[in-house]
Amino acid sequence: MPEQNFTYQQLFDFTKAIFKKIGCSNEDAAIATTSLLSADLRGVDSHGIARLSGYIRLWDVKRINATPVITIIHATPSTAVVDGDSGLGLVIAPFAMKVAIDKARQVGTGWVSVQNSNHFGIAAHHAMMALQNDMIGIAMTNASPLVAPTFSIDKMLGTNPICVAAPADKEPAFVADLATTTAANGKLEILQRKNEKAPVGWIQDKDGNASIDPNELKKGGALLPLGGDREHGSHKGYALGAIVDIFSALLSGANYAPWVPPFPAFVPMPAQQPGKGIGHFFGAMRIDAFRPADDFKQHMDNWIKGFRSAKTIKGETKVLIPGDPEREMEKERKQNGIPLLEPVIHDLQELGKRFEIPFY
Amino acid sequence: MPEQNFTYQQLFDFTKAIFKKIGCSNEDAAIATTSLLSADLRGVDSHGIARLSGYIRLWDVKRINATPVITIIHATPSTAVVDGDSGLGLVIAPFAMKVAIDKARQVGTGWVSVQNSNHFGIAAHHAMMALQNDMIGIAMTNASPLVAPTFSIDKMLGTNPICVAAPADKEPAFVADLATTTAANGKLEILQRKNEKAPVGWIQDKDGNASIDPNELKKGGALLPLGGDREHGSHKGYALGAIVDIFSALLSGANYAPWVPPFPAFVPMPAQQPGKGIGHFFGAMRIDAFRPADDFKQHMDNWIKGFRSAKTIKGETKVLIPGDPEREMEKERKQNGIPLLEPVIHDLQELGKRFEIPFY
Repeated sequence: MPEQNFTYQQLFDFTKAIFKKIGCSNEDAAIATTSLLSADLRGVDSHGIARLSGYIRLWDVKRINATPVITIIHATPSTAVVDGDSGLGLVIAPFAMKVAIDKARQVGTGWVSVQNSNHFGIAAHHAMMALQNDMIGIAMTNASPLVAPTFSIDKMLGTNPICVAAPADKEPAFVADLATTTAANGKLEILQRKNEKAPVGWIQDKDGNASIDPNELKKGGALLPLGGDREHGSHKGYALGAIVDIFSALLSGANYAPWVPPFPAFVPMPAQQPGKGIGHFFGAMRIDAFRPADDFKQHMDNWIKGFRSAKTIKGETKVLIPGDPEREMEKERKQNGIPLLEPVIHDLQELGKRFEIPFY
Repeated sequence: MPEQNFTYQQLFDFTKAIFKKIGCSNEDAAIATTSLLSADLRGVDSHGIARLSGYIRLWDVKRINATPVITIIHATPSTAVVDGDSGLGLVIAPFAMKVAIDKARQVGTGWVSVQNSNHFGIAAHHAMMALQNDMIGIAMTNASPLVAPTFSIDKMLGTNPICVAAPADKEPAFVADLATTTAANGKLEILQRKNEKAPVGWIQDKDGNASIDPNELKKGGALLPLGGDREHGSHKGYALGAIVDIFSALLSGANYAPWVPPFPAFVPMPAQQPGKGIGHFFGAMRIDAFRPADDFKQHMDNWIKGFRSAKTIKGETKVLIPGDPEREMEKERKQNGIPLLEPVIHDLQELGKRFEIPFY
């Protein structure tokens, strides 16, 4: 499929201008743009600018508030609950992560559960805010139900990702950002575009049979929890997705399980709404609340070097550290630009026409 | 294989007497016994009394100290690092979890990383201590290296389990306790005893090829991270195991990665020891540090009922909630006793002879 490269600055200016057009303040538009485009930089193309028009459609149906009053509705020295006032998750998440970091500065750790939010982009962007403060950062979110728990045909959970970021010294940071499913939905979208089959263990059809059709979700099928089936530990992926749901929504008062609002604006809201919006959970742990940060970071270097020098299976070139592929992608794209597929460019051009912000 | 049932009290009295014989105080012996036998009650037979002689062999080679002075070596309002003084993890873990709970009572959450410990039994026993305090409990531990990271043939991580326990109201608690591998090592031991093959995706041979031989680990093979292979998300299981290692050992100053001391006393200690003993990590989050505990627990009931009523795949009877199988097992075994296999009984009889505590 034809694609074209754009500089980060080009995409930044366009995206920020669009967010301002729907009413975001200058500051919020910049924060939302930075959150969104961190996905494009890191190579998570499904969660970046390709979704911009999706966010705008949610604003069209009044499910996103461009001028939210984000508030802390409950707090203790180490915890807070944030009400996002239906704002962009792209803005609410950095707010909540800052609260977690501030609390960690005060009492060692900070933990923030968020209600009444929307999709926040990629978890890694928020978790990594902790790194420059010599803290471990944690971010997770629930999401629209696409995943069937073990033994079920009902979609009860989202892809519910978890990210943990930990600083090292001379080595780059450890950044693990993983959907709690065998494969993220974005991977299926890529197979759909390429007209290729999916491996067994990623999806099931509407009756719960293994399927290799990447279009199965549109026909009543479901994504599978990490593990794929019971024999390969899908009950563990299911449990991990459930933990994310509990921390993000049950603790905060957001919607959970099959009642999480869908991302596509054309999908009606669930009839039952046990909470408000979608939920996130953030954590920050000050390293020196446990041991001197330099000690920790030097041991992280040793840990990372140990894994880098592990013997590889014949035919494989190296053992990767979580975060390696995204970091390499970011370096490459900062230098050479961000490639967008033709349908994404077309979508952005249409968006640009509507808001009188020409897209290149 | 022939087996025989014993009451919990029978196993408790014997185990406690053995721990006292190696020098544990009456109180520590009771705590260690309760921790150890929680595995037998919950049906995790690999981690219970079957391992008692293994713990004693570690004491024989002076790798377990029966009279440790367990101390908090660093603390902030929400964190602590505990030095276990080479004691039984079965005793150190409840100590550390209590510290986490006390901190949560004070400032909302408590997080404790532990160095200089030994194997702590099952994670669920410790995490569940939080439940009666209306808190969410978290427990994890690193362990002897048996797991190869994605693309590698070297065993770099343990099965590194994670447990999260969250209270409900009328429904039983949510308790997810999972090794970050496709299958726990105990599952392989069962297949070895039955002389059966393992499913593809559990293990690899010494060259990194998929294997179905449950004896593969003795021939240089490795357990696989949850996911099995790269195509099915093994890099996620690897990342989860790594997170457990970082929280348990890099934060506390314990040994990590391939340098974690082995459980079998006959396996020599690793040449390099970047820390002390093995590491654990515990967390407690007071529910009402986020929202009223009753609200949370009622929503947990609603969450659980939602999953219980999810449609099943044809041929499956119900969707399970994490913790269901272990709870049913515990109920059954409290009533009818705990079955032990003949080789385990023999092992305990030999242990009893040595310490002049006859094993029934």
